[in-house]
Parts: sequence; C-alpha cells; structure tokens
Amino acid sequence: MGECLSLAHRGFGRTSPNPMVGALVLSPEGEVVGRGFHRFYGGLHAEEEALSMAGSRARGGILFVNLEPCSHWGRRPPCAGLVVESGIARAFVGTLDPNPVVAGKGVELLRSGGVEVCVGVLEEECRRLNEGFFCRFERGRPAVWLKAASSLDGKVALRGGESRWVTSFEARRYGHLLRSMVDAVLVGVSTVLIDDPELSNREVDGPSPRPVVLDFHLRVPTSARCLRRGALVYHCEGEIDRERELRSRGVLAVRVGGEGGRVRLEEVLSDLLRRGVNLVLVEGGGRVLSSFLESGFYDRLFLFQAPKLMGEGISFSSDLSFGSMEEVVGLGLVSARRVGEDLLLELSGPGRPLMGGGKPCSPA
Amino acid sequence: MGECLSLAHRGFGRTSPNPMVGALVLSPEGEVVGRGFHRFYGGLHAEEEALSMAGSRARGGILFVNLEPCSHWGRRPPCAGLVVESGIARAFVGTLDPNPVVAGKGVELLRSGGVEVCVGVLEEECRRLNEGFFCRFERGRPAVWLKAASSLDGKVALRGGESRWVTSFEARRYGHLLRSMVDAVLVGVSTVLIDDPELSNREVDGPSPRPVVLDFHLRVPTSARCLRRGALVYHCEGEIDRERELRSRGVLAVRVGGEGGRVRLEEVLSDLLRRGVNLVLVEGGGRVLSSFLESGFYDRLFLFQAPKLMGEGISFSSDLSFGSMEEVVGLGLVSARRVGEDLLLELSGPGRPLMGGGKPCSPA
Repeated sequence: MGECLSLAHRGFGRTSPNPMVGALVLSPEGEVVGRGFHRFYGGLHAEEEALSMAGSRARGGILFVNLEPCSHWGRRPPCAGLVVESGIARAFVGTLDPNPVVAGKGVELLRSGGVEVCVGVLEEECRRLNEGFFCRFERGRPAVWLKAASSLDGKVALRGGESRWVTSFEARRYGHLLRSMVDAVLVGVSTVLIDDPELSNREVDGPSPRPVVLDFHLRVPTSARCLRRGALVYHCEGEIDRERELRSRGVLAVRVGGEGGRVRLEEVLSDLLRRGVNLVLVEGGGRVLSSFLESGFYDRLFLFQAPKLMGEGISFSSDLSFGSMEEVVGLGLVSARRVGEDLLLELSGPGRPLMGGGKPCSPA
Repeated sequence: MGECLSLAHRGFGRTSPNPMVGALVLSPEGEVVGRGFHRFYGGLHAEEEALSMAGSRARGGILFVNLEPCSHWGRRPPCAGLVVESGIARAFVGTLDPNPVVAGKGVELLRSGGVEVCVGVLEEECRRLNEGFFCRFERGRPAVWLKAASSLDGKVALRGGESRWVTSFEARRYGHLLRSMVDAVLVGVSTVLIDDPELSNREVDGPSPRPVVLDFHLRVPTSARCLRRGALVYHCEGEIDRERELRSRGVLAVRVGGEGGRVRLEEVLSDLLRRGVNLVLVEGGGRVLSSFLESGFYDRLFLFQAPKLMGEGISFSSDLSFGSMEEVVGLGLVSARRVGEDLLLELSGPGRPLMGGGKPCSPA
C-alpha cells in the first residue's frame, strides 16, 4: 500500500477534483506485473492502467489500490468491473470512496464478482493523501487550510507597517510548497491592494493554484498580478460594469451574499466546490483569517513562527475578540518542525461541515 | 563521563553557588573502585569522596570528573593535590573551571604531579550542567532564564483581564520543574499585587528557589505569599520604615538605582551574584520581561504556547516597541517539544555579559 501511495502521489496537482489514486497488480506468484496511477483529470484511472500493463498475468493475482475502485460510469468505465473481468483473486483497498455514488458499491461489485476484498489498509494515510476529496463529500465544502506567518508574539508587521521580512526565505518557500498542494489560494482584497502578490508557487515545481479574492466592494484593480491565472473574485456590492471589465480580462467576478463588509463564506465555499476546488489555502490578511477562524470552516492552520519578538504591532488575529476564555479559538497541536531558522506549527481546526451548501460537481 | 554527569546531577539544587560535580575512579584493571559527587554546598568535593572510596586501589588508576579539580584552599582542601597524592595515573576532565582562581591551575598541578590529563570530554554537556556557574565567571552575572506562557498569538490574558488558564496543567507543572532548576525566581511587583503567587515549585521535588521581587516604590504587601522564604525585594524609592517592617518579617529590601519606574537590572544582577545566585528564572509580568528582553541580559527564553488564538488582549511583549525590523528581538530556536496539549519552545538569547558589575562571591 505504501507503493500505491507513492504511485498515487505522482498525479499530484493534476487530478483535482478527482482524487489521486495508485494501483499495483501482483501475479499469483507475488511478482509485480502492473503499476498505474491516475495521471490527470479525465485520464486513465489507476486500476485501468495497472491491469492493462498486467494483462493476462493478473488472473488469480492481487490488486492493491488506495481508494475503492469506482462502480459507476463517469468519464471512464467503472473500474470495479474491469477488476472482476481481469480475474484478480484478491484486492486490498486503502479506504472506501466517500462519493455517495460509489461508497461501498465498488467493493460490493468486486465481492459479487468473486474477488476477496480487504478494506482499510493504511487507511489514515490514504485519507490524508486525498484530504480535499474526502472533505468535499464528508463536509460538503473544500478542505480549508489557513496559513499565517508571524513572530513568536503573533505579529505580522510593526506598528509602522513594516513587515519585510518576518520569516526566513526557507519558510516563504515552504509556503509556496503549500500552494503547490492545493487547488486554490484565497486572500482578501486588502492584501492585493497592499502587497499585490502573484499567489504563484514559483519557488517549487508543479502548477500554481487558482487565485481567489474576497472583495466585498469589488475594488480589486484589473492590473493586480494575481488576476492573471483564471482568478475568481467574490464580491457583494460590485457594479455590473466592473464585473464585465474583469471578465474581459479573464477574471470571473462572482456575486455572493454578505453583510457588514464581509462576504458570506458559506456561499464562497459552496461555489468553489461547484467549480471543482477540493482544497483551498487561505493566506490572509488578518481580516480574512479571522473570518475563517470565527466560522469554524477550516481544517488546519499552518503557522510559521519566526524566533523574534516584535512587541507592539499588527497581529494576524487582531480582528478576533472574546469575552471569556471559554470562547477563544482552540486548536490541536499536530506537529512542530523547524523550517530554516523558523518554526512551522501544524494545528488542527474544528472542521465544521457545510451541508447542503451547494451541489458538488461530480468527479469523473 | 556520562556517569560523572549523572553522579554530579545528584547534587541538583543543593550545591549552589558551587557547581555540581561528579567523579569516578577506575582501578588500573578498569574496575570502578570509587564514585563521588558534591552533595551540598560546603560538603565533600566529588573527587575527595571518590578517592576516599577507592583508597589504595586508585594507585595507577584513572579519574573521570566533569569539572577541573580545584587548585586552591576554599572550604575544602585543593582536590588536585589529593588526586596527585592518590597515585592516579590518568585523568579525564570534562571542562576547565571558569573560576579565575582555578582556570587551568588545577590541571597544571595534576600534570606537574605526574598525572596524564585529557581535557574536554563531553565539554558542552559538562558546561550546560553548570550553566549558571559558568555564566557567573564568564559573563559577570547569574545566568538568566526568561519564562513566558501565551497563546499562539502571544496573549497572556483577554482584554478583560481573564487569564485562567492559558496553558495546560502539564505546562504549569513544567514551569515548576524550571523553578526547581534555578537558585532564584524573579517577578515584578504587579504580578505579586495581582496574582499573589507562591513562586514555589510545589508540583515537583526539590528545594524551592529564592523569591525576588522588583518593586520600584516598595509597594509589596507584607502579607504576600512569596515573601515567606527569604525573599529579596529590590526597590529604588521605598521608605526606611517599610524596609524595616519587611526586614522584621525576614524579607530583605535592597535599595538599588533606577529611573522611569524601572530598577537598574545591572545592579540587581550584581547583587544577586554577590548573594550566591548563579541562575535566576524571570517569570514576568510583561513589563519585567520586556526590561530583560531590551537589556540583553538573558541567556534563554522558555516560551509555553497553548494551541489557542486569543485575538485582541494583553501580550507578554506589549511593552516592547520597535521602529524597524532590524531592531526587533532576535532569538535562536533551540528546541520545540510538546508538554501536555501545549508547546514548549526553548530559545537562546544574546547572553550579554555584565563585567565589573559586582564582586562575585567566591564559591568554596
């Protein structure tokens, strides 16, 4: 199963909204006779590729696959049927498919076809590999990762506004690595107006995520650098002319509900899901991070901490306000590791589900 | 040498201002024939104890000791002489003694007495075991450890003042462990007025450190719980009557220089050194921590971080103010470990020396 996960990972960044899947076929003698992985959205499924490589040597053999083989016709024929036809005798499946269209039906199909099936091998690892895909079906929204970078006392800038650089080059590059792992990267319009970031993962390999801007009044300048790669801008009170102007530049301005200067996150997340986004990285600024922290619609927080104390200044959490210790944002410490001179904390969030928030697009 | 360090550590908390020392004697055949450690200030030195256990079997044997044997008459006779007399053939010494009265003279004495000497075995570990003792001689002041406990965004209390509890019970108990490792624990008078802490290490074994209060106007109430164990109160503008009143309760009020409501840390540290304090733990509050952070007179910061975000509120660093990123407090990340649900970061400070700040008391 470890090799399946490695194989699956080779589709990294190109399969979304489909999951990453790897498959391994062993002959009855225990020799590896087939390997496959889902290379890109719309391409061959992992099982198809592995079985096709194995050919007749799959007969009586063993299949390893990190996700339940599909049971329905999407863009590809149902893999469970192909597995049965191949004559595979036993299948080890990492985890069931959370897609209600499959969800156990693939395994049923295998079993009724005479294949002995074992489900739940390295299950946690298999789920984690496709965290966004599972979140889509289990929580009705994309998985949401928050990213922040601060000093040890939570500051992102000095009182005068200076912020270059709080964290080290290595930490910033690691931030680009996070971008390479997600489908979309989301910021508030203030970040665009102040920093004009590219929001690309130029420091690492792989495709850059789709930029998403929350922009209540639709103030984003058409010249903004992040608008170049099929950006999505969510607004509440923008003018039709501005929408058109942005569209002519390849930017999709989507009107959603909102109040008090804040766009409704439920609508944003539902819309992102409809557009095939399984995993979104929220990079700030403070107001957007606070919105997500308050909403509970997030699954992890990646906090880079520079070993510095900045004293009075601007905190990434300054928009949060609590009346008692019972109300504060409580997280779970997952890990702490050194990145360059800095520390990277991974924390788990409440993972609040968003049910009925929007009809998910159907992965193929 | 590892066993020497373990032996030395058995004197933990009882040797100050002397260092912790362990000694091991091997017979010429390689058998351990003597073990000793410095049990308490004024007691037998480690070498004396180990050589006395070994008796005539030390002749032609090997001595291991984590610190250079002393060459002078203090409370005990010079150990280097005893080693030569014992007939030891070879000595492995962890590190030289930083005390200028010894500083290499002990090793010279051994060599001139015909003992083959090797210096610098596990040197870093040997230095670290007696960090405060080395700091006394090398930096002219006690080693200073700062301790703070905050949320991930640097807050120690909500805006309304609520602060119970930011960190977990395990983190607070670990704080008591830190207290057990130092000679004195230092706070500002505001902490005494607000929290009335005991400043004892009641959650762990070992003697509690001496309480020290910085109290510009000598406002500390005589009923304060921390005043019970030979407390020291440093003030600048207290009245003679108040000093007397405190003295009648066993509290020593010491007048030092200061300005702008802040006592001069140089004078406090010099005085602590004179009184035999090798290692002091500074526990706050924010104003006192900021004073030390600004001064550079500190060697380590222990920062407990609860996996929480408290938003707006009171930060432990709020008294620090910087005009540019070049000025901010820069620390070195030494380690990050989990303590209960919380994270404990150990960071290294600038370790600014304080030379000529006061005549050190002479360890025996």
